[in-house]
Amino acid sequence: MRILVSNDDGINSEGLHLLAGALNELACEVFIVAPDRDQSAASHSLSLHRPLRAEKINSHTYAVDGTPTDCINLAVNGLLKDKKPDLVVSGINMAANMGDDITYSGTVSAAMEATLLKIPSIAVSIDGKLNYKFDTATHYSIILAKYVLEHGIPEDTLLNLNVPNLELEKVKGIKVTKQGKRLYEDPIVEKVDPRGKEYYWIGGNELGFVDIKDSDILAINDGYVSVTPIKLDLTDHDYIEKLNSDLEGL
Amino acid sequence: MRILVSNDDGINSEGLHLLAGALNELACEVFIVAPDRDQSAASHSLSLHRPLRAEKINSHTYAVDGTPTDCINLAVNGLLKDKKPDLVVSGINMAANMGDDITYSGTVSAAMEATLLKIPSIAVSIDGKLNYKFDTATHYSIILAKYVLEHGIPEDTLLNLNVPNLELEKVKGIKVTKQGKRLYEDPIVEKVDPRGKEYYWIGGNELGFVDIKDSDILAINDGYVSVTPIKLDLTDHDYIEKLNSDLEGL
Repeated sequence: MRILVSNDDGINSEGLHLLAGALNELACEVFIVAPDRDQSAASHSLSLHRPLRAEKINSHTYAVDGTPTDCINLAVNGLLKDKKPDLVVSGINMAANMGDDITYSGTVSAAMEATLLKIPSIAVSIDGKLNYKFDTATHYSIILAKYVLEHGIPEDTLLNLNVPNLELEKVKGIKVTKQGKRLYEDPIVEKVDPRGKEYYWIGGNELGFVDIKDSDILAINDGYVSVTPIKLDLTDHDYIEKLNSDLEGL
Repeated sequence: MRILVSNDDGINSEGLHLLAGALNELACEVFIVAPDRDQSAASHSLSLHRPLRAEKINSHTYAVDGTPTDCINLAVNGLLKDKKPDLVVSGINMAANMGDDITYSGTVSAAMEATLLKIPSIAVSIDGKLNYKFDTATHYSIILAKYVLEHGIPEDTLLNLNVPNLELEKVKGIKVTKQGKRLYEDPIVEKVDPRGKEYYWIGGNELGFVDIKDSDILAINDGYVSVTPIKLDLTDHDYIEKLNSDLEGL
């Protein structure tokens, strides 16, 4: 069995190497193909208009000057062409990826790219800001990786794992969750540069979250590990019938 | 009423200006806030780690040195703060955005960002490669914009409009569709640069598509306009129960 590990924080991230190290315990061959620098909030962007470079760091590790999506695509279709992974694990992201934030997330997008390429995948994030309890995150990453390798998951679905930043014995267990909703204010910070020219910086303070039953955010806040199955089909199936009758004859 | 128009092809795109011009017919105030250069395949990426510049081209037009998502966020929370748009229309993208490709699309992501900011939105793309029938695309953009302004859409949903590259009278009508699935081969092109160093370029030839009933791709191929409702909740709700029972006790 082969596992490909990537992330969006870049090749030097502690979370990436701890994850890869932990997955070695599964008696799999573990490869790392990760961005050569921080690509947080890169989302699912793919570099189509420029070449990519891959620096071979050792026989199982590459740094790519692209996005997390580029890394997975280049790994599966190029660098590891004859060694197709059985599982892709992306992370450990050093901040949670929950609610609508997952649409911005490079960590989740790397997993999404794997799913598009028909490889089961898991995105792993830890809900912390400092003093990361990586042991807790790697513990549950191994459990979930083992589960996926043994049981598989639906073809167009990935697992989004978020782990609370708690010591292992303080975690209450695993909850399968739905995508929740955070509330943000989005202040744009407007300033003037040393040459007298205006610039803007996208801010964003969290105001709280919507109290959605069984949501990822709620589970984490309650001290559980959250596993959200995420699918590639974004169609709002429930709305099709109404829209159909509304648009009829236009 | 105010409409904000953006895209991912950049401020100089013909499709952008034709769309904005056409939407003027709805007796709305139309603003353009678009990337200053091509941002195709930028996906839903947001620039958090650097400042953004906005060049004011005229009283209703700005070019931003960021992604489509940056443009919408900066417009709604900054540049047009006191002139919040009632509708965001993103496009006209000069290639279809259908099937799983929408997860890469800057055009769709601009609409997605608007939806996250509680503004109804439409993404518009034309399924062509040259000799674009923009009149057909603007015709249906106006129909759909009028519909959304009058009837609204569910809060967490956007409309993904794809228009076939046909003369207006050849279009068979509108179909409400589901997200389809294209089949790609993803050859990585590997070459050597003038300094003797290897580089890679992500390729990707379309092999066809999966024959999914009522899909966007099928509708377009049949000569219909495709309207897919896309939602922000990516949860695979159907899989939750099985996953729950599988993970119990782990």
